[in-house]
Amino acid sequence: MNEGDILRNENERLDELLRNSYRIIQNTELFCFGMDAVLLSGFVRAKATDSLMDLCTGNGVIPILLAAKTDCPHMAGMEIQEESAALARRSVELNGLTDRIDIITGDIKNAPELFPKGTFSVVTVNPPYMNENSGLINPSSAKAIARHELLCTLEDVIRTAAYLLSPNGSFFMVHRPHRLPDIMDLMRKYRIEPKRMRLVYPSKEKEPNMILMEGAMGGNPFLRIEPPLIIYGEDGSYSEEVASIYANEEASGGKERTS
Amino acid sequence: MNEGDILRNENERLDELLRNSYRIIQNTELFCFGMDAVLLSGFVRAKATDSLMDLCTGNGVIPILLAAKTDCPHMAGMEIQEESAALARRSVELNGLTDRIDIITGDIKNAPELFPKGTFSVVTVNPPYMNENSGLINPSSAKAIARHELLCTLEDVIRTAAYLLSPNGSFFMVHRPHRLPDIMDLMRKYRIEPKRMRLVYPSKEKEPNMILMEGAMGGNPFLRIEPPLIIYGEDGSYSEEVASIYANEEASGGKERTS
Repeated sequence: MNEGDILRNENERLDELLRNSYRIIQNTELFCFGMDAVLLSGFVRAKATDSLMDLCTGNGVIPILLAAKTDCPHMAGMEIQEESAALARRSVELNGLTDRIDIITGDIKNAPELFPKGTFSVVTVNPPYMNENSGLINPSSAKAIARHELLCTLEDVIRTAAYLLSPNGSFFMVHRPHRLPDIMDLMRKYRIEPKRMRLVYPSKEKEPNMILMEGAMGGNPFLRIEPPLIIYGEDGSYSEEVASIYANEEASGGKERTS
Repeated sequence: MNEGDILRNENERLDELLRNSYRIIQNTELFCFGMDAVLLSGFVRAKATDSLMDLCTGNGVIPILLAAKTDCPHMAGMEIQEESAALARRSVELNGLTDRIDIITGDIKNAPELFPKGTFSVVTVNPPYMNENSGLINPSSAKAIARHELLCTLEDVIRTAAYLLSPNGSFFMVHRPHRLPDIMDLMRKYRIEPKRMRLVYPSKEKEPNMILMEGAMGGNPFLRIEPPLIIYGEDGSYSEEVASIYANEEASGGKERTS
């Protein structure tokens, strides 16, 4: 299918994901994915025996990237905004992934009505980051809902993840460094023990702007913090590691991370 | 005074602190300070209006380094092992710091009997790190007491710091990365909000081996994570920043950090 047959209006565009020749339909009026989604997809570990739920899935970028990067056969994505969920479904179909990925329109707070407790062995999420909602120009806009804790808070995300995870199941989240105390607090409150963390620094002289977190449902306390993930090298281009997370032409990226 | 007049037995040695020509007496049978104490001293901010308590002070290296690095006029160090405290007092005297530093022999758990609540505006601590005490060959040895949570736990340290701190007072601690969830948990339990954190990486390819944490008594949630502190540069020698934390001959170290 060529681009003209895929896109339905002037705000839509087709982006290459640089993984398995997958493509994604984005709408510039809605939330478009950023580096955080890509780095989260590189941080997640999922196996052929897992079933995975991506909360706040937006246009479905995370399950689509994980279809390329892992052997996980069953993935679901849950999204509250029907416009974004519809876009995600079209991208899933475009990439021939309808047998691996289901997109569900719904509010994550209602997950207990939709799924039995412990349905998934992996839960991933790139949630709305911002808890400072005052002064928002348009709190009902699609982008504001994707970025701010308007329809779901960090606690909603973590409580829902804990409900959906099977015992010892894995939780993966990308978030902002300044929320780390809240993140750890809430993870422990819902018995998801922080087990693996990585800080993402734009360069080795700068403060981190993202945090990648893995937790284990009911796990024992012992956090492993990984080496720094540094985005830009001395020459201003992506570091080798970041380039390999983006594109599977690189030797160090891809499926071997899933073992 | 020359070395022969200062040292009292064959296990003692005199080390240069590379700050204000200060020296410290160490006993190789007791705990000798490491890089963690030096990096903590570079991380602490204390002003001429502060009064400071260093818990688990050992041979007093942290208040002595802070006497060189800050304008803080009143510092105390508390140490449970009299042998270490006696060594600390001799080093304080040797450096002419008896008017600025008091060394108290005592158990930090008894601090409420010794000081009114909120006595200090700054509390620093390089506590025993290890909570795996099983299999210790000699749990009564001086080194084991300094390294393992035998006579004081992380909770004792944080509860005592919270008792001693004045409202909005500052808490500074160095610890191991794998304890981060416990550290944040306990800080919040005793209302010391994590405000500033730095991870110390041996090199930019390695996992961090120390964590530097600042908290504010009763502060509002917002954690600032600083750029990575990388110990060794590409050539295997100390990075410029670490060299400047060790020695005040460097332009970037020293008192300007305290403003």
